[in-house]
Amino acid sequence: MSTWDALYANRAARMRASEIRELLKLLDKPDVISFAGGIPDPRLFPAEMFQEAYRDVLTGPEAERALQYGVSEGSHRLRSWIVAHMKTLGVDCAPENILITSGSQQGLDYLGKLLLSPGDTVLAQAPTYLGALQAFNAYEPNYDRIDPGTNRTADDFKAQADLKGSKVKFAYLSPDFANPTGKTLTWEERRSVLDQAGRLGCGILEDSPYLSLRYDGEPIAPILAMDCERSGGIDQTRSVFLGSFSKTLSPGLRLGWIVASRDLIARLVLIKQASDLNTPVINQEVMARVAEAVFETHTATIRAAYKLRRDVMLGALERHMPEGVSWTRPEGGMFVWVTLPAHVDAADLLEKAVGNAKVAFVPGKAFHSDGSGANTLRLSFSCAAPEKIEEGLSRLGKLIAETVIPAL
Amino acid sequence: MSTWDALYANRAARMRASEIRELLKLLDKPDVISFAGGIPDPRLFPAEMFQEAYRDVLTGPEAERALQYGVSEGSHRLRSWIVAHMKTLGVDCAPENILITSGSQQGLDYLGKLLLSPGDTVLAQAPTYLGALQAFNAYEPNYDRIDPGTNRTADDFKAQADLKGSKVKFAYLSPDFANPTGKTLTWEERRSVLDQAGRLGCGILEDSPYLSLRYDGEPIAPILAMDCERSGGIDQTRSVFLGSFSKTLSPGLRLGWIVASRDLIARLVLIKQASDLNTPVINQEVMARVAEAVFETHTATIRAAYKLRRDVMLGALERHMPEGVSWTRPEGGMFVWVTLPAHVDAADLLEKAVGNAKVAFVPGKAFHSDGSGANTLRLSFSCAAPEKIEEGLSRLGKLIAETVIPAL
Repeated sequence: MSTWDALYANRAARMRASEIRELLKLLDKPDVISFAGGIPDPRLFPAEMFQEAYRDVLTGPEAERALQYGVSEGSHRLRSWIVAHMKTLGVDCAPENILITSGSQQGLDYLGKLLLSPGDTVLAQAPTYLGALQAFNAYEPNYDRIDPGTNRTADDFKAQADLKGSKVKFAYLSPDFANPTGKTLTWEERRSVLDQAGRLGCGILEDSPYLSLRYDGEPIAPILAMDCERSGGIDQTRSVFLGSFSKTLSPGLRLGWIVASRDLIARLVLIKQASDLNTPVINQEVMARVAEAVFETHTATIRAAYKLRRDVMLGALERHMPEGVSWTRPEGGMFVWVTLPAHVDAADLLEKAVGNAKVAFVPGKAFHSDGSGANTLRLSFSCAAPEKIEEGLSRLGKLIAETVIPAL
Repeated sequence: MSTWDALYANRAARMRASEIRELLKLLDKPDVISFAGGIPDPRLFPAEMFQEAYRDVLTGPEAERALQYGVSEGSHRLRSWIVAHMKTLGVDCAPENILITSGSQQGLDYLGKLLLSPGDTVLAQAPTYLGALQAFNAYEPNYDRIDPGTNRTADDFKAQADLKGSKVKFAYLSPDFANPTGKTLTWEERRSVLDQAGRLGCGILEDSPYLSLRYDGEPIAPILAMDCERSGGIDQTRSVFLGSFSKTLSPGLRLGWIVASRDLIARLVLIKQASDLNTPVINQEVMARVAEAVFETHTATIRAAYKLRRDVMLGALERHMPEGVSWTRPEGGMFVWVTLPAHVDAADLLEKAVGNAKVAFVPGKAFHSDGSGANTLRLSFSCAAPEKIEEGLSRLGKLIAETVIPAL
């Protein structure tokens, strides 16, 4: 036993490695067609724009500022771009309503840190983005399940929390083309979440990194936009919007943002100051320039590329999946969620898929904190070339057919 | 009252703005000679080297990797440079003993998160770097005071912790040219800290961002180096070393590192994964290149510049301070710590200093968590030109003489 074993905090018991990250390391083989990773296609990054922006920022007297410490709130220029961007989404806010974070993952960590005492309740969808639960786990909450569209009410959530002597602090939701399901909450579902949060007196964390990757259908207002309208303005809201540059321009600069009431942002700035002082100024100044110059055109380009891949994937699923298999038809994002017949275990299937069929995906159980979802799996279409998608799903369809039929 | 007021975690009560950061905003006036800020001189940053390195990293196929997500541990190339650097300090370690952090401030946050449950005890010097206490405060510890060189023993610390039903988790120390005092722990003091931690069964956090800025005297081995030697190797140690590029190459990329036993690093990697996934790959790859190319020559250059400023400051203090004023004579770093006669309040003095004498410093009380130290102040020589140092201290000496004598 090392010295340290006797010294860990209670919360350390809840810190575990991401199963998915561990799995992805194993699946990274050159002869396997992989639909596993949920990352943007690096061939689509606007590398030349970034190169030019780093050169500009490091030329002349501005270099001194770019390489120095900066304010915890974040670069004014980048926050100003985000103000304009949020306006296009129907959220009217000022730079003081924005905190720049090191990716939206850091936003999730800070919100957990600010809001969660041990035993507090978080409402989350199932399946959900497990990185969020990992961030919250350090603050030792309980979880309850919210599925907008079903008929659990605020009273049900409150009764459940009361049973444990707990209090619901916030609902965590990913409303647009969620990871892992690809699903989008309707306007009515968003309104219902806002209603229920109002009745519970709790907050809402609206995590929307894929928002700009819509391929068809009409955009739906963020919950924060509805909340602004209803409450009389951003400074009276109970919702927090988390945005990110990771799925559009680049995840490598680790830049995300939180939009919320001034009071909440002021608290989060204190957390930022105490936990890493500030996000690198140089990266923020670079991202501001790249976003100003090419956000619109670049997102149009990648939308076209990803839409094609999604279309090929949905077509290939139609062509190759045997009866009894169903899947989501996402209007954006990077993921299709597949449900197999109830008796099929996607983790067993993965072994055969990688070993024999040379095709990979993530078993859906990994996205369920309660161990359910064994017959589900996640396919990502973001990094695969169209012909590989066709080929990979043909192999996977064959394998599923062979696996499903003998068991029937 | 806003929705959020009812939703904050218990720990939020201990989150406060840094007085010093707030003060620095007020002191930033063009006609004031400031010894207040404790930051590196931006005119000394190797901006051209950084520009070149960003260009290289963003050219060709490497750009895709630099702009993508990365591993939570940190870039292998940068960790390898740090392995070699730690070897020059007498610490024999492998890349698996290193976690790259977003500045060493993030290292302090993560170590607090991993080790502190509410009510646990942290031993800290007084005065100390308050940013560390800010990081720890989020995890609601108690503090006790450790001053190596005085005769408080492990038994005293244990008795004090026992009284509160608490457990000492670690001692936090800044052994080299500490912020704010400029003091350095002797070899014997370091050994005594290691002895006491051994008897307490606690850890040691050795925070040494100024280590490479030694202007004279002989280097003293880090506590971690002594610990490695005594315990039989890095993986058996109870010490953690926190290093930083912020005071040498640039604080703007927000890059620091933790060196510790493999077990501890593995736990910290889980925290990194859950709290911001990874530090930007692009910045790590750039810093690795710049460190490989110019760390030695660049630190020699800035040491010469800072040494001159320190010498001018110590000379000017001799020339201009009235009797009854004493100060430290730091062998490195950025700070001189001044003690005024007991009845003088440095915060009152600052008002007159900024208003009439047009010279600024940080009152020492800000660095004492217990409200003591009213008659102390911190002077930084890192950003002032030699002639300004002479002029500023001449003004300050006159003001102190006028303030001290009437009160005698």
